[in-house]
Amino acid sequence: MNSIDQSTAPVAAKQNVFSVQWEGDVLGHLDLLDQTLLPLELKMLTISNVEAAFEAIVTLRVRGAPAIGIAAAYGVVLGLQPSIRNQSPIAVARAAAVHACDFLATSRPTAVNLFWALDRMRAVLARNSSVATASDLAQSLLREALCIHDEDRRMCHAIGEFGAELLDDNTGVLTHCNTGGLATSEYGTALSAIFTAQDQGKNLHVYADETRPLLQGSRLTAWELQQRQIPCTVICDSMAAQVMREGRVQAVIVGADRITARGDTANKIGTYGVAILAKHHNIPFYVAAPRSTFDLSMLRGEEITIEQRQPHEITNGFGRQTAPTGIDAYNPAFDVTPAELITAIITERGIIAPVCEDNVRAMLQ
Amino acid sequence: MNSIDQSTAPVAAKQNVFSVQWEGDVLGHLDLLDQTLLPLELKMLTISNVEAAFEAIVTLRVRGAPAIGIAAAYGVVLGLQPSIRNQSPIAVARAAAVHACDFLATSRPTAVNLFWALDRMRAVLARNSSVATASDLAQSLLREALCIHDEDRRMCHAIGEFGAELLDDNTGVLTHCNTGGLATSEYGTALSAIFTAQDQGKNLHVYADETRPLLQGSRLTAWELQQRQIPCTVICDSMAAQVMREGRVQAVIVGADRITARGDTANKIGTYGVAILAKHHNIPFYVAAPRSTFDLSMLRGEEITIEQRQPHEITNGFGRQTAPTGIDAYNPAFDVTPAELITAIITERGIIAPVCEDNVRAMLQ
Repeated sequence: MNSIDQSTAPVAAKQNVFSVQWEGDVLGHLDLLDQTLLPLELKMLTISNVEAAFEAIVTLRVRGAPAIGIAAAYGVVLGLQPSIRNQSPIAVARAAAVHACDFLATSRPTAVNLFWALDRMRAVLARNSSVATASDLAQSLLREALCIHDEDRRMCHAIGEFGAELLDDNTGVLTHCNTGGLATSEYGTALSAIFTAQDQGKNLHVYADETRPLLQGSRLTAWELQQRQIPCTVICDSMAAQVMREGRVQAVIVGADRITARGDTANKIGTYGVAILAKHHNIPFYVAAPRSTFDLSMLRGEEITIEQRQPHEITNGFGRQTAPTGIDAYNPAFDVTPAELITAIITERGIIAPVCEDNVRAMLQ
Repeated sequence: MNSIDQSTAPVAAKQNVFSVQWEGDVLGHLDLLDQTLLPLELKMLTISNVEAAFEAIVTLRVRGAPAIGIAAAYGVVLGLQPSIRNQSPIAVARAAAVHACDFLATSRPTAVNLFWALDRMRAVLARNSSVATASDLAQSLLREALCIHDEDRRMCHAIGEFGAELLDDNTGVLTHCNTGGLATSEYGTALSAIFTAQDQGKNLHVYADETRPLLQGSRLTAWELQQRQIPCTVICDSMAAQVMREGRVQAVIVGADRITARGDTANKIGTYGVAILAKHHNIPFYVAAPRSTFDLSMLRGEEITIEQRQPHEITNGFGRQTAPTGIDAYNPAFDVTPAELITAIITERGIIAPVCEDNVRAMLQ
């Protein structure tokens, strides 16, 4: 573990920080950047068992739909390690892996990438029904987890290329929550479009919604943009309308936690409101997400389970009680933006526009 | 001064707390409830000179457009006290009062009630051009300040009566910022409609936007509603759209800091966004404000000066730094909601609807 003070750490060193990284072989461990401590502290956590992986996902030490999926995939490998060390019978090892999948699937309900990644791990278990040892099974599972991770890296860059086409030089872009390298394996989804536009020499000014209650925008997005020296202004979520009215923003781009077959998009609470504000000001509203974020088993956003989080995230958010003792608070972690409010969805295969069931299914094939 | 712990103080005792109160004669002092400490601490400040009154307004110890006007009016009396004590010549006393008016007018730029109250104090100075002593002048000024204060009490109740007509029994009402007794002298403006509806036996459920950056909604509005045992749920500002979509809200009611001749309304940052969301969900959007909040010298909202506050209110808001060191932040204290988004404006004389210049001028005559 290391801890670097934000104000003194060299920028170059921090650009090499990854949110999720596997170290070693099947008996290795997962390195996670503790995102709850950013931007003040850069601390890597060593995750050595499935319970710790579960805890890290629930408490948002690792967060962002793609990063959660990757961390969970590695978590399944961690779940098998006791069987390897104990030289357990293969049936015991297999049961441990299945249990790890089931357990990790209960960590958070909304982001579909978690279930998508765990389904891939379950498919590996099914394909390897005849392996002889826990270690061999773990080899296959680790290969799949590394593959998911590597695919995510390439996916991020592809989304960035398609997304950057939609962002003009010398414009303002508003984003909500965090969709950068911290939320994924490298470039991110919505922020990848911005990073790629910068790589292409475009000048953008990013307005980052602070994203209450957990401030992923001010803590994480602003930090990532600062690392890359992209001009960034933090605003309270309540200021997005005013910033749009003042003509400071020419595009909105956000990520997604789950997208239905017709394009209804679950994302961080507040996204739906930003989409309405963008429509009111005739500003295009883009969603950037890999195809693994789509859930074709659902047609409409109403079917998506929305995670409800603890009221104290609102009433006692940042080291201080900011509401009366005993007051009620409502804390949905996500909302759903209907397809009608989304100008385009940017995937690693191309752009879906207009957003409708036919175009979604065509892109997903 | 006294300090009562929120969690143990009896409810009845707290209902008698006033945000602004003059104690004594012309050599008396101003008692202010320090609103920056709520809801955790109930502390009265003794304000004994004009500089302290100015500081209390700038730092939002006293806030809310009507309460600022009342505090400033009393502040002019405080400005005259050295002249009384020193038995200064009347010309010196008069100059001190004029200086107090000019000085207090620089405390905050947006709420027009401040300027309206100070103009009334200046008119008293003009009317009393022949008084002989500082003490006599102060008597007239204190009478006017007490009159402004008393008018505000009656105005609040009248707004409440008109506003309550617009709120149906068993409905949800969303509000932004704080517009209750803390922001005024007694019942408030927007909250007065809710308090009066409760007095009439109506059951309302209030959704209180926490109102970043300074959390007047979760700190003050939730506290006032809790005192009166009105069901209240605190939400982050970013959740208003979702709460509307879920059908929890049948009306939005907010206060105002300045209203132009055509009805464009400056109010706490975030109000404009809430108005757009209400329109999108076909929910009526009401503004409650006394006639002293109107500024007929302006036709359009673009003419209103918007106070820009310090970035640290956003980046270091909750007792902890929540954004990277050195990041830019934009912190307008108010926004302007155009008349087209306002269903009605509730004044102490009646309801303006539809909101347009003719109807505004008719009500103000």
